[in-house]
Amino acid sequence: MSVSLSVARKRIPHPLRSCLATNPSLRACTSRTYRTESKRDPNVVRIVEVGPRDGLQNEKGVVPAEVKVELINRLGRAGMRIIEAGSFVSPKWVPQMAGTAEVITRMEKLPGVHYPVLVPNMKGLENLLELLSATTAHSVGSLTSTIPPTDEIAIFTAATDAFSLANTNCTVAESLTRLAAVTQKAREKGLRVRGYVSVVITCPYSGKVDYRRVRDVSRELLEMGCYEVSLGDTTGVGNPASVGAMLDVVAGALPVERLAGHFHDTYGMGVANALTALEAGIRTLDSSVGGLGGCPYSPGATGNVATEDILYSIQDSKYRTEKSVDLEAIADIGWWISEKLNRQNASRVGRALRARKERQKKQS
Amino acid sequence: MSVSLSVARKRIPHPLRSCLATNPSLRACTSRTYRTESKRDPNVVRIVEVGPRDGLQNEKGVVPAEVKVELINRLGRAGMRIIEAGSFVSPKWVPQMAGTAEVITRMEKLPGVHYPVLVPNMKGLENLLELLSATTAHSVGSLTSTIPPTDEIAIFTAATDAFSLANTNCTVAESLTRLAAVTQKAREKGLRVRGYVSVVITCPYSGKVDYRRVRDVSRELLEMGCYEVSLGDTTGVGNPASVGAMLDVVAGALPVERLAGHFHDTYGMGVANALTALEAGIRTLDSSVGGLGGCPYSPGATGNVATEDILYSIQDSKYRTEKSVDLEAIADIGWWISEKLNRQNASRVGRALRARKERQKKQS
Repeated sequence: MSVSLSVARKRIPHPLRSCLATNPSLRACTSRTYRTESKRDPNVVRIVEVGPRDGLQNEKGVVPAEVKVELINRLGRAGMRIIEAGSFVSPKWVPQMAGTAEVITRMEKLPGVHYPVLVPNMKGLENLLELLSATTAHSVGSLTSTIPPTDEIAIFTAATDAFSLANTNCTVAESLTRLAAVTQKAREKGLRVRGYVSVVITCPYSGKVDYRRVRDVSRELLEMGCYEVSLGDTTGVGNPASVGAMLDVVAGALPVERLAGHFHDTYGMGVANALTALEAGIRTLDSSVGGLGGCPYSPGATGNVATEDILYSIQDSKYRTEKSVDLEAIADIGWWISEKLNRQNASRVGRALRARKERQKKQS
Repeated sequence: MSVSLSVARKRIPHPLRSCLATNPSLRACTSRTYRTESKRDPNVVRIVEVGPRDGLQNEKGVVPAEVKVELINRLGRAGMRIIEAGSFVSPKWVPQMAGTAEVITRMEKLPGVHYPVLVPNMKGLENLLELLSATTAHSVGSLTSTIPPTDEIAIFTAATDAFSLANTNCTVAESLTRLAAVTQKAREKGLRVRGYVSVVITCPYSGKVDYRRVRDVSRELLEMGCYEVSLGDTTGVGNPASVGAMLDVVAGALPVERLAGHFHDTYGMGVANALTALEAGIRTLDSSVGGLGGCPYSPGATGNVATEDILYSIQDSKYRTEKSVDLEAIADIGWWISEKLNRQNASRVGRALRARKERQKKQS
């Protein structure tokens, strides 16, 4: 996976440049991580497919490991370059994520594709590292592939104490202290680390979020060594005005090429918010095939904005994905997994493409 | 109803200015119709509520007149200023629109609110004029209100011959000739005339549309005396790139303040397309409460973009509606009419607001 350092360079405001100039940690990390990326097309959009983790985690049923493996394999073959593969959280808390070890061991590891896994704390990281160590040793011994199951973790915190306390039973500050240790250890072991900030627009417990808090938490994640921070409108309440205002504050102070947009489609604003983020210079968007997911802390909330809908929304525009992604194939995967889960396909594009196909079948 | 002549004046390209300078018909019409509108807030967005006509016309069931009357009355009380009230088409072709005469006679006529009715041809106009004449005479005779049922008609044509032939059994050119006569007569009788152009992006019969054709048809409608032309993405296939490209051609040659955007939400792009239109300087958007409607020529297509979703998408932005509209009330109307029709509420905002309400009820 790669990140466009050159993206929207002209949009990076002065505060950032001075921040980079005065903050050796940020600068060092930037130059180290993205040294070879400076000539990238500024209009390349990276899609982080979060369906197999953020999506399935918030669906009602527990999905068998073989279905998860199949989902990840299909997504990789359709052209997705970053696929969030699972979570090393306690199955006691998130039964949907049981079996991630099995999933990431069994799934196809395509060259150039990253398969981040969510790690909530040091315990989760240790479990992952143990697996990586065992898998690699075993693979070498049996002369099979030595590709490790993953080379990336994702960590998460929130923009409000209320959400952090409800979600992980600690304040944001406590969470950041814990995550700094997790990040350091992961990086020492050669893993990339991606950070999530939840509730960047509205918190279901404490209401409207102070965007300066989002900025500060994001900065801490970058400074502790995250290569990217994904800004999550967890409740899906944001609209282009609020998302734009949030990004004015956050991308106004931090390198926009190290930020990602993570939008839920609760109010049907997912696509519009994603396009607002692109306008603000962001070039990485999280989405889930079939619009899988929801938010357990926002009952009634629908899932992540659908990958199909994001892909459709940038068709024939100045934007393009890093690698050509087969929209029809992604839409078919959305239908396949929706049927497996016995849920409605939440992708509008998926539904429209199927309706069109059925019309054509009738006519022929 | 009023139209912002000052809207996005700086965006009006040179070709338009020369068009206005050289085309006395356009200039005369502009100065006559909008003389008093030059000081309007350039960020005022007008919503044309098309649910009672374009919406219901494309729903499966036939809705009783009293429900239509109630729908229109509720929309007016919630703050909508332009409500498409029905259609004077033959009930043989569109049974859903039977009873428009009864509806517009019985509905509340709120001051400052316009209630356009669709008129497909001279016969439809004559039926309307007969009603207007009878109603006014009757009202005067009985000393009740002399407010006529409506002061506005809408006419429609298409950007492709294939669609026009399928829809009205005549080419676009033939259609424009007929409509010119309808428009002239309507204006002589003191009615305002709004024009629709269907399939401005993609035609279900002939594929990708030539945007220059959209421009030329729109110009003809303006020149024949329409105060505004609504550009309809009838199939809902458009995305921000194609809608932007279409508007580059159309608004690049015609007065943007006399154009409206009419988007269907088939691919979930309705909100994003509407915001693209606003970015291009358009300030009038058609939408339907609860996302009522569809397109009989595009089976599987969902309806107009929902009024609730449009209102939500511009909340707290630089844009505002002409009169304060009560979003909660609109969302309630969306639920009310969806239940009356035994259909799913297609407004994402409507669904999210109800889910939030239900959560709050449980918590209290």
